[in-house]
Amino acid sequence: MAGIGPGAADLITPRARLAIEQAEIVIGYRTYLDLVTDFLKPGQKVLSSSMMQEIDRCRKALELAESGGRVTMVCGGDPGIYAMAGLVFELARRNGCSPPIEIVPGVAALSSCAAVLGAPLTHDFASISLSDLLTPWETIEKRLHAAAQADFVIVLYNPRSKKRTSQIMRARGIILGYRPGETPVGMVSSASRTDESMRLSTLEDMPDEDIDMRTTVIVGNSRTFTWQNRMITPRGYRDKYGLG
Amino acid sequence: MAGIGPGAADLITPRARLAIEQAEIVIGYRTYLDLVTDFLKPGQKVLSSSMMQEIDRCRKALELAESGGRVTMVCGGDPGIYAMAGLVFELARRNGCSPPIEIVPGVAALSSCAAVLGAPLTHDFASISLSDLLTPWETIEKRLHAAAQADFVIVLYNPRSKKRTSQIMRARGIILGYRPGETPVGMVSSASRTDESMRLSTLEDMPDEDIDMRTTVIVGNSRTFTWQNRMITPRGYRDKYGLG
Repeated sequence: MAGIGPGAADLITPRARLAIEQAEIVIGYRTYLDLVTDFLKPGQKVLSSSMMQEIDRCRKALELAESGGRVTMVCGGDPGIYAMAGLVFELARRNGCSPPIEIVPGVAALSSCAAVLGAPLTHDFASISLSDLLTPWETIEKRLHAAAQADFVIVLYNPRSKKRTSQIMRARGIILGYRPGETPVGMVSSASRTDESMRLSTLEDMPDEDIDMRTTVIVGNSRTFTWQNRMITPRGYRDKYGLG
Repeated sequence: MAGIGPGAADLITPRARLAIEQAEIVIGYRTYLDLVTDFLKPGQKVLSSSMMQEIDRCRKALELAESGGRVTMVCGGDPGIYAMAGLVFELARRNGCSPPIEIVPGVAALSSCAAVLGAPLTHDFASISLSDLLTPWETIEKRLHAAAQADFVIVLYNPRSKKRTSQIMRARGIILGYRPGETPVGMVSSASRTDESMRLSTLEDMPDEDIDMRTTVIVGNSRTFTWQNRMITPRGYRDKYGLG
């Protein structure tokens, strides 16, 4: 499994690139395959699928690998963060099959979005997916409360989709119970791609309409500040070096 | 600022490599510079420093950039996660200087360590540094309680140093207040380097002595399991697809 990072070709590691180039079969969600077409070779078999066929995609990859094929599954960002790595192992265990599985880590969405915003993640943070398709909303809410109360910077994955529209504003409401309205919020869509966009706001003024399924939202902790259109979390709570 | 990832040359992105190659001045902690010597060019000025000279290093980089030099600061992992990105912005703001600063994201330690372990981070996680040099221990404790109570996978950075030896076992004790002793724990040192090591254990049996400043510790959530020497967190709490 190769993580290709956020999308730009120069943020794909050489190891991921090689895993794609040397594969007999390349398999992945269409959007990610489109980002690596330059690395595909004639003679390779390419299997692309739509977003909602995750289980089938992983099953197919395992089947092909079991029968001796050299298969590379392409994932956006890092395959280990809210992606297919876990599912592949779950399926392999369930099916009692165990082809050698290598995870090639990539630049995660939280890293690429943080880089666009400045430096929001330089202190403790919690990453929470707002998708309640596979996780009950009560569990998500509990985590939002815990992360907000303990002053973590909070990274929100899957903040909104066409069908799931209310979660991001409910999350905002929960966090506002613990943090002031002026807490910085950064929103990044399609980091490193041609349609990249970023926007800084605050919990109070956070725009609902700019957020979609390609957006990652980062909510600052009590020390996070903005400066020159950047979002920055200081690394220390102690002003040890007189930087406060 | 260029993040070079965990250490292996083939996990450095082309963008980070180019930033190093095109710099007039390359600046960084000695250990990280040693990992990129192959990319350095004759004629480049290289400034290396020891771990504890972080402020001086960032100040120097800003000064040189302000006076027109093309400076690249090399960071291990991702420059935005517990690294120098925040400090550079803090210093720039304080000094009222603002040379253009670009953050080139890298493969973070949490991504590379997760890849070595299997797939421990495929659901919500909290990242906590156990270093109380810049953060009061009470704040760290509060976060450990919150993360453990809300069933986050927990990534522990800086678990131990020569001088700070008790924190990791205190953290373990706190988490054990919320999770059973058999909860999987993964420990990875020097991911992707020649001296890489990984070990799986449980909260109950977690070995104190194998952990040092190069180790990242990942504690599973209530669903995390081990299989064939891998640590895997299922992505769903709902057995929607009959994978339970």
